[in-house]
Amino acid sequence: MKSIILAGGSGSRLWPLSREMYPKQLLNFDDNLSLLQKTFIRLNNFTQASDIVTVTNVKHYQDIKLQLNKLDKSNVVIAEPLGKNTAPAIACTLEYFKQNDGGDDVVLIVPSDHLIKDFDGFNRTVLEGEKLAKEGYIVTFGIKPSYPETGYGYIKTLKPLQTGYKVEKFVEKPDYETAKSYIESGNYYWNGGIFMAKISVLLDEFKKYQPEIFKILGSLDFSKDKKINYNIYESMPSISIDYAIMEKSEKIALVKLQSDWNDLGSWQSFYDVKPKDSDGNVLTGKVITENVHNSFIYSQKEVVAVSDLDNIILVETEDAIMACKMDKSQNVKKLYEKLKLKESDTTKLHKTVFRPWGYYTCMNSGEGYLTKTICVLPKQKLSIQSHNHRSEHWVVLEGKALVIKEDKEYNLNAGDSIDIPLKAKHSLQNPYDEDLKIIEIQQGDYISEDDIIRYEDCYGRV
Amino acid sequence: MKSIILAGGSGSRLWPLSREMYPKQLLNFDDNLSLLQKTFIRLNNFTQASDIVTVTNVKHYQDIKLQLNKLDKSNVVIAEPLGKNTAPAIACTLEYFKQNDGGDDVVLIVPSDHLIKDFDGFNRTVLEGEKLAKEGYIVTFGIKPSYPETGYGYIKTLKPLQTGYKVEKFVEKPDYETAKSYIESGNYYWNGGIFMAKISVLLDEFKKYQPEIFKILGSLDFSKDKKINYNIYESMPSISIDYAIMEKSEKIALVKLQSDWNDLGSWQSFYDVKPKDSDGNVLTGKVITENVHNSFIYSQKEVVAVSDLDNIILVETEDAIMACKMDKSQNVKKLYEKLKLKESDTTKLHKTVFRPWGYYTCMNSGEGYLTKTICVLPKQKLSIQSHNHRSEHWVVLEGKALVIKEDKEYNLNAGDSIDIPLKAKHSLQNPYDEDLKIIEIQQGDYISEDDIIRYEDCYGRV
Repeated sequence: MKSIILAGGSGSRLWPLSREMYPKQLLNFDDNLSLLQKTFIRLNNFTQASDIVTVTNVKHYQDIKLQLNKLDKSNVVIAEPLGKNTAPAIACTLEYFKQNDGGDDVVLIVPSDHLIKDFDGFNRTVLEGEKLAKEGYIVTFGIKPSYPETGYGYIKTLKPLQTGYKVEKFVEKPDYETAKSYIESGNYYWNGGIFMAKISVLLDEFKKYQPEIFKILGSLDFSKDKKINYNIYESMPSISIDYAIMEKSEKIALVKLQSDWNDLGSWQSFYDVKPKDSDGNVLTGKVITENVHNSFIYSQKEVVAVSDLDNIILVETEDAIMACKMDKSQNVKKLYEKLKLKESDTTKLHKTVFRPWGYYTCMNSGEGYLTKTICVLPKQKLSIQSHNHRSEHWVVLEGKALVIKEDKEYNLNAGDSIDIPLKAKHSLQNPYDEDLKIIEIQQGDYISEDDIIRYEDCYGRV
Repeated sequence: MKSIILAGGSGSRLWPLSREMYPKQLLNFDDNLSLLQKTFIRLNNFTQASDIVTVTNVKHYQDIKLQLNKLDKSNVVIAEPLGKNTAPAIACTLEYFKQNDGGDDVVLIVPSDHLIKDFDGFNRTVLEGEKLAKEGYIVTFGIKPSYPETGYGYIKTLKPLQTGYKVEKFVEKPDYETAKSYIESGNYYWNGGIFMAKISVLLDEFKKYQPEIFKILGSLDFSKDKKINYNIYESMPSISIDYAIMEKSEKIALVKLQSDWNDLGSWQSFYDVKPKDSDGNVLTGKVITENVHNSFIYSQKEVVAVSDLDNIILVETEDAIMACKMDKSQNVKKLYEKLKLKESDTTKLHKTVFRPWGYYTCMNSGEGYLTKTICVLPKQKLSIQSHNHRSEHWVVLEGKALVIKEDKEYNLNAGDSIDIPLKAKHSLQNPYDEDLKIIEIQQGDYISEDDIIRYEDCYGRV
C-alpha cells in the first residue's frame, strides 16, 4: 500500500503556538513527537517509509524533512511551489506513484495534523477500507458524530455494502439545528478528510471530473528531485479534493472510523484531549492559579498567574500572549487575521527557530544590529557561509566550538569570542558531545536571514 | 511647613508591574512621572524641597533618590535599615526636623503612592488643616466615601469645629453591611493616611503613648548622613501610626479632603482612574481585541491578543503575566504570596533594573554565565569597580563607549568588543550625547550583583 500525508496548514487556529512558518502539524503537544511524526508512525504500521509521501508547501519543506528524517530517512517529501488546496497536491502525488510503478496500488490519504491514539482501531478501519478500495471504491473514513458540531462537513450514507456504506452525498458545514437533525437521523458522519482508493481509480476520476488538472500531470518529472515545477503547478486550479472529486464521483463508499479522532482544530479541542486536574484545569509550564476552573493555561517561558477566572484559555509564548473564552476559541482565527493585517511577525515566525543543526532565539535588535542565542546540537555544524551585509561576533556561553574562518580553524571554549568580518567564509561547528551555546551579535546595514551565501552544507541546503 | 512622604510599600498589589524591589510609588502610570514624583511635586507647592523628607526602606533608597533628584536635588531621603511600619518611621523623621530647628513647625505626612489630580482642592484642604494644626490638633484628612468599601479603615466624626470636625474614633475595615451603614449615617470618612500637626504636638503624643519609641529618639544622629542606625531602629516596636497615636490621642480633628483621591490599591482602582474606550476597555501597549468589554489589558512588551472576554484584567510584563477577574483584583496579593513561597524572582525584581547611570535587562543565564543588555545614558558612567568571581565581555551595539581597564582608556564604537578579566579594575562610561547600548556577557563560578568592589562612584555608592 501507499500513503499520502497532506501537510499544508496555515497555523492560524492554534496561534500563538502555531505560526504561518510553523503550523500545527509540526508541533508536539504531549510528548516529543509532533502530530506529523505521529501520523507518519501510524501509517508506517502498514506502509513502508519510502512509500509514505508527504506533500507540503515548499516553505515548510525543511522543517518537515527534518522531523521525518528523525524517524526514517527513506521518507519522501514533495514540495508544492505555492498553495493550491488539496486536489492538485493529491493529483501530483498520485502521478509520482504512477511514475514509480505504483499505479495499481491502493493509496491512503490522510491529513498530517489530526490526533488518533487508538492505532488498533485505525488499523482495523484501514483493512476494511482496503477491501472496498480494491473493489474500485473511493473509500472515505466517516467519524461517528458525538455532538452537533457546526464546524465540520458531513457525509450522508445510503445503503450498506458488505462492509461500509454507499455514500449518498457530502454536505457542507450545517447550522446548529441541521447538525442536530443529522445526528438524530443516524446516517450522517463527520468528514475527517481521510480517503482510500486505488491510484488508478483516483486518476480516472481526475480525468473525468478535473481534466484541467489531469491533462498536465504527465509533464511532471520527479526523476531529479521531489519539487513540483512552478509553472505547471501555477496553471492548476485551486480546489479541494472534496469539491474536485468526492462530491462528484459515484464510486464513493464510507467505512466508519473505529478509533478515536480529534482534529485539534481549536484550542478547545486541544483542551478536550488533555487530562484535567481536580479543578478541571489543564495547566502547562510555570502556572500559578487561585480559584480557577475548567481552563487551559499554557506557559512556554514566563510565569503566568491567574485568579478568579473560569472557562478561559490563556497561552503564553516567547513573543505573544493569547486569551479567550473556552467555547469561543475558534475566534482565535479572527485575532490572527487582525494581527496579520498589522504585519505582525508573531503570525509568521516563532522567536525560537529550529534548524537541522539546532535552534536559535532572537533576543533583541535595533538600528544596525541583531542579537541571537544559538544552540548547536552535538555532532552538528552550520553550513560554510558568508554574508555580504553584516559582520558577526560570537561569544561561547556553554560547550566548545570549532570555528572555521577563511580556511583556518579556531577552537573556542566558554568565555572565548571571535569576530567574523563582512564577506568572510565561515562555519560554526560542534564536533563534541555536549550542546554548544553561543551569543551571536550581527551588525551591518542590512540584517536579514536572506543575506547568506552557502558554500557547503551537510543538510543539502546549498 | 515641613512634609514627610512615607515611601514604604511591598509591591504586591499591582504585581507584576510592581515588585518588592520596585513598589508602586516608583511606577509611572500615565505620564513620565511616578506616583512618588507626583506626590513630591504636590507638596513642593507649599513646602520647599529641602523640607520635604521622604522616608523609605534602605533597599529602595537608590531608586527613590534617583527619581527625586530629577525634580530637585535638595530633597532629603531618610533610609530605614529595616521595615518597622509607619510609627517609628514618622517618629524618626520628626526627630530629624527637631534636630534641624523645625520643632515648632507644622508637618504634613502623606503616603507616596496615592493619586490626586486636583492640586487646588488638595491645597485648600492643607490650608484648612494648617489652621487646626496650629491650634494644637492632629488633623487627619477624611475622604468622603463614595461606596461601601470594605478594604479601608473609617473615621467617625463628632461635633463640628470651626473648620473640620472633632473625631470620635477610628474604626477598622468593616464588613459590607457595616460599611453600608457608615455611609448612610453620613459622619464616617475613609482614612486615607494623610495627617497634619505641629511637630512638637506629635512628639508629645509619642512621649505619652509610645514612650518606648520616644525615649530612644534622642540617640539618633543625622549630622553625618540620613541613615537611621540599625541597632536603634531594630529596638523599636513595629507599629502603625494609627495604632500608635491616632486611635489613642484626644487631639484628633478631621478636615474633609476637597480633591479627588485614589490609593491605586488594586488593579481595579487603577482601571477606574483611566479613560475608557467605547467598549469600556483600557488597552495599553501592543494589544489586539475582539469582542472584549470593560477590561484592562496592559502589554509592556509583547503582543497580547484577547477575544470574547469581559471584566478581566490581563497584565503582561517582561517576565510575568497576570490575569484575573476585574472585581476580584485584590486577590492578586494571593497570587503574589503563592509565588513568593516558590521563591520566584518575579515577586522581587523586574527583568529591567534602573540605575543612576541608566538601566540593564537580564536576557538569559545558564551554568556559569549571565547576559545583559546595558544602556548608559548620555554623560553618565558606571563606578570604577572589579569583580572577584566573574570576567565580563562587552560588545557595543549602539553609541560609543569609553572603557577604563586597569588605568588604560579604550574608545569603542558599535561592533567593537573588549574583555574585562577577573579582578581587573574597570569602568564603562558614556561621555557622549547619545545613549550607549552594549551587551555584557558575565562568566564565572559565582554570578551575582553582590560580587562588586567599588573604588570610585559619582553617585556616592562606594
